[in-house]
Amino acid sequence: MLLSPVKIIETAAFDLDKPTLIEGLPGLGLVGTIAATYLVDKLKMEPLGYMVSEKFPPIAAIHNNIPLHPARMYKSKKYNMIVLLSEFIIPLNSVYPLSEAILDWAISKKVGKIVSLGGIVIRGEQDEVFGIASTPALVKELNANGIKTIKEGATTGVNGVLLAECASRNFPAVSLLAEAKPDYMDPKGAALVIEALKRIVGLDIDTTDLVKESVELEKKMTDVLTKARESGKHYKATGEEYGSMYG
Amino acid sequence: MLLSPVKIIETAAFDLDKPTLIEGLPGLGLVGTIAATYLVDKLKMEPLGYMVSEKFPPIAAIHNNIPLHPARMYKSKKYNMIVLLSEFIIPLNSVYPLSEAILDWAISKKVGKIVSLGGIVIRGEQDEVFGIASTPALVKELNANGIKTIKEGATTGVNGVLLAECASRNFPAVSLLAEAKPDYMDPKGAALVIEALKRIVGLDIDTTDLVKESVELEKKMTDVLTKARESGKHYKATGEEYGSMYG
Amino acid sequence: MLLSPVKIIETAAFDLDKPTLIEGLPGLGLVGTIAATYLVDKLKMEPLGYMVSEKFPPIAAIHNNIPLHPARMYKSKKYNMIVLLSEFIIPLNSVYPLSEAILDWAISKKVGKIVSLGGIVIRGEQDEVFGIASTPALVKELNANGIKTIKEGATTGVNGVLLAECASRNFPAVSLLAEAKPDYMDPKGAALVIEALKRIVGLDIDTTDLVKESVELEKKMTDVLTKARESGKHYKATGEEYGSMYG
Amino acid sequence: MLLSPVKIIETAAFDLDKPTLIEGLPGLGLVGTIAATYLVDKLKMEPLGYMVSEKFPPIAAIHNNIPLHPARMYKSKKYNMIVLLSEFIIPLNSVYPLSEAILDWAISKKVGKIVSLGGIVIRGEQDEVFGIASTPALVKELNANGIKTIKEGATTGVNGVLLAECASRNFPAVSLLAEAKPDYMDPKGAALVIEALKRIVGLDIDTTDLVKESVELEKKMTDVLTKARESGKHYKATGEEYGSMYG
Amino acid sequence: MLLSPVKIIETAAFDLDKPTLIEGLPGLGLVGTIAATYLVDKLKMEPLGYMVSEKFPPIAAIHNNIPLHPARMYKSKKYNMIVLLSEFIIPLNSVYPLSEAILDWAISKKVGKIVSLGGIVIRGEQDEVFGIASTPALVKELNANGIKTIKEGATTGVNGVLLAECASRNFPAVSLLAEAKPDYMDPKGAALVIEALKRIVGLDIDTTDLVKESVELEKKMTDVLTKARESGKHYKATGEEYGSMYG
Repeated sequence: MLLSPVKIIETAAFDLDKPTLIEGLPGLGLVGTIAATYLVDKLKMEPLGYMVSEKFPPIAAIHNNIPLHPARMYKSKKYNMIVLLSEFIIPLNSVYPLSEAILDWAISKKVGKIVSLGGIVIRGEQDEVFGIASTPALVKELNANGIKTIKEGATTGVNGVLLAECASRNFPAVSLLAEAKPDYMDPKGAALVIEALKRIVGLDIDTTDLVKESVELEKKMTDVLTKARESGKHYKATGEEYGSMYG
Repeated sequence: MLLSPVKIIETAAFDLDKPTLIEGLPGLGLVGTIAATYLVDKLKMEPLGYMVSEKFPPIAAIHNNIPLHPARMYKSKKYNMIVLLSEFIIPLNSVYPLSEAILDWAISKKVGKIVSLGGIVIRGEQDEVFGIASTPALVKELNANGIKTIKEGATTGVNGVLLAECASRNFPAVSLLAEAKPDYMDPKGAALVIEALKRIVGLDIDTTDLVKESVELEKKMTDVLTKARESGKHYKATGEEYGSMYG
Repeated sequence: MLLSPVKIIETAAFDLDKPTLIEGLPGLGLVGTIAATYLVDKLKMEPLGYMVSEKFPPIAAIHNNIPLHPARMYKSKKYNMIVLLSEFIIPLNSVYPLSEAILDWAISKKVGKIVSLGGIVIRGEQDEVFGIASTPALVKELNANGIKTIKEGATTGVNGVLLAECASRNFPAVSLLAEAKPDYMDPKGAALVIEALKRIVGLDIDTTDLVKESVELEKKMTDVLTKARESGKHYKATGEEYGSMYG
Repeated sequence: MLLSPVKIIETAAFDLDKPTLIEGLPGLGLVGTIAATYLVDKLKMEPLGYMVSEKFPPIAAIHNNIPLHPARMYKSKKYNMIVLLSEFIIPLNSVYPLSEAILDWAISKKVGKIVSLGGIVIRGEQDEVFGIASTPALVKELNANGIKTIKEGATTGVNGVLLAECASRNFPAVSLLAEAKPDYMDPKGAALVIEALKRIVGLDIDTTDLVKESVELEKKMTDVLTKARESGKHYKATGEEYGSMYG
Repeated sequence: MLLSPVKIIETAAFDLDKPTLIEGLPGLGLVGTIAATYLVDKLKMEPLGYMVSEKFPPIAAIHNNIPLHPARMYKSKKYNMIVLLSEFIIPLNSVYPLSEAILDWAISKKVGKIVSLGGIVIRGEQDEVFGIASTPALVKELNANGIKTIKEGATTGVNGVLLAECASRNFPAVSLLAEAKPDYMDPKGAALVIEALKRIVGLDIDTTDLVKESVELEKKMTDVLTKARESGKHYKATGEEYGSMYG
């Protein structure tokens, strides 16, 4: 595909067999990141590695006393599953490189399927999850599981690029988009999307407490997201090539 | 010519013999894209490949449930023809690389002739298609088919660069420009340009229903075009290096 | 000198012996481009090649039904002369690369002398052409032919870079600058500069009709110049990374 | 990790054995730079080398009559310690390269531990220093020394990138952040952070005079910081590619 | 040090033995350029070479009928001296490359000492020249010659980078900064700095006429400086990628 200035670095043994790669990047209502974080917590997933690039905001997330790269991966041997999440918005100039890095890595690791989680503008009641799939067989599978697929439209960002590329290569990829409120965080959307995920991937996870627990989650995520954004805004706002005094 | 950061990737066998390459890129009244899409639909053309570049908007078009690269190619063995179309405006910094990629690819594939479809500001009644050709012989051919050629002027974008380059190399290339309204979409212009195309390329296609059917077509194309534009605008408008919360 | 991302491509045999290279680039009153175009027309010069770069505006000029690269060269075996002209303003980031490409090419082709034509702000009546030369011998030659040389000052753009470089290498180069009005086009300045050129290069050309004929010429050049400028402005004005709908 | 356009150049012999690397970069209240400078002065540390990059402001600090690179390192054989400091804000595009250069260099030199000093917004009285550590063992060590660690949050800049990278590689790194006033300079914060440093690194240094002496220190640092900022602002403000007359 | 996209090209034989390199770049009151130009004229120095870069303004200075690169060098065998001067403000992105090019060249040519001339804001009467030196021995030498050295402060631009680098490498370098008015040109500052220069370098030159003669000098320099600035401003102001009509 293209040149890749994004690197994926593994920090633990890869002991999975054709695993499913769940991708949760920030988007509408932060559905992807919330859902991914919830999966990592509840399924007690272990660190697997991280993504790094000069174009990413220079920031460490601190969770449970440990500094972490804000774009990283976890694994679960039990569920034969990987979760890839980011706590910052992927910058425009990193969308192609990250998409390529993920797909190249997934293929090299013999990932069986990519499922990305995200949000979509509410089209009525907030009770539905829409799907997009890279192959006609997967479209049928989604429909068979009661997930409406998007027939005509467009989807942007890492998910969009991955889907188009996977469709071209006949690689199985699915995007699940829960109706979400364009608020800061929409845990209800995250719960919806996890429930849809459960219909296509066998998972033992309860989402009834997600909304309640999300108060805690929101606290954890807010600081990283805000500082990631501000680290860019700050330098720009000062309008000075060499930053301001209180960088 | 130049360095090419645009890649053309084939996803199906190339079983054509000196085919005509029809190019339909967005422009005035979206004539090129509408006409190209209509040709693909009505002539039941098959996917041939796609173009990809880091400079293209990171987006997947979804048509008939399948995610697609928004710049792609179709083939018709019956008509010995290729249609190359884009559902997004070619960014300025991709005009040269895409032009070069198309021409290099066309030559390597022994394409017989390039015909690009587009729109031009209406110069009276909307009833005419103007032509530009890369060789005197093609100018005569256009005129013989009742298509007025532009004697003095200028033409920009991928079509312009391709025409100048083809003229320099004596490669047969034609640009057909239908009078079009600078509205969002002008299906009448698309119908005009297809009728002109029929006069120089033997095609069994009826355009009487194009304007009527274009309501459906417009629905399909609008979402991709809008999201392609917004994916760029969004990142800029936020004025933040690392995007806003709802990317 | 420097790296050259500008390419000069020859499309005809180079059958000249130490020819004079006349350079006519847009500048004050468009004197250079008008004069060069007039020379090409009246001396019935033949196409020799063109210059191309990703930094040039993506545009084809259409003259006499044929699409042309807007920066190109013509030759005259009779006058042992080359005319290099551009129908668009050389972008700032292309000034060095183009200057280098021209000089390297000129040296490799054993060009005997470079003469660039341009305009200068009127310093009284519009009746004078000022000269700059790269060697003391050429300064004398200009003075001997009644052309006042600029003793102290500065000159910018491709002409300036070429003159300084030629002076450093002792390569014969002359710049002729006719007093010109800073209007859109000043054919009188072009006539003045051609008359001065005739004094240092033997040419059989009558400029009495230039001003009269320039109405026609202006029509030919305006469309290219305007569209070249607008192709850049357009993309910028939209303020969108991926262009607007009517690109 | 990544490409490194920042170079670390040693100008003295490296005669230390698994030393501690203390890092003091400008940030809130300039705590890091003040504390680092104070350590260098009071511990009579010797020059060890400097960091240089085209992205750094082009400036020399002049201290005690000698021009110095504004980002540089000192060593103390007695304390087996290195101090790395910068007198200018690290530009955003240098955060990753500098972080990588520091960590690569530290590993190649067998540095035992990295301790970065900085400021944090006051959360009550200005009497506390918060810690972040790259390993659970170091978190315990900080807590055992009465330094509260940040359990959830985020930290940006060189410190953040270093901490996340060190945590991934299991390299011992600590960040000490003193509550500081977002004023031009907060020597009290610097004193606080040095006192915390003393609790984890054996140091014979008295900070009781730091606030008093900081008047002198401020004078020394102000000129460099101001000129570093202005060197960037100046060129931008003029809005001219080639600077203004009084550069 | 770093990559160097600035080239130094020699156009005459280098027949000097460990010469002193005098550097006069534009700055406060244009002291450096005026003083350097005056030295070249009065000491009848000969051309030695020039500096060129794509980042420099594309311009030729014309002096005494000859086009010249605006950044260039002269030599004097009699005084075993080189003068390096620029008639345009060094663009920010060229400060590091030019500094590196000068120092690398100076070392390769076995230059004995670098002395840069410049201006500094007046701190009382305009009667003093301040010095900065790269080594303690040179500080003493300056003081012994009655030149006060700057003990604490900062200095920016090519001089600053050169001084810090020379201090790191123990290469002898001196900066002489005359009190100057931030006006367009301050010949009095230039006279002051030449008088200081005479105290550390044996020179037979009279500055009593400098202020009087500077009217002539100002005329010579103004055109180049103005056009250099405008060549950048022009392209920017138009706000068009492809320049305006009267480039």
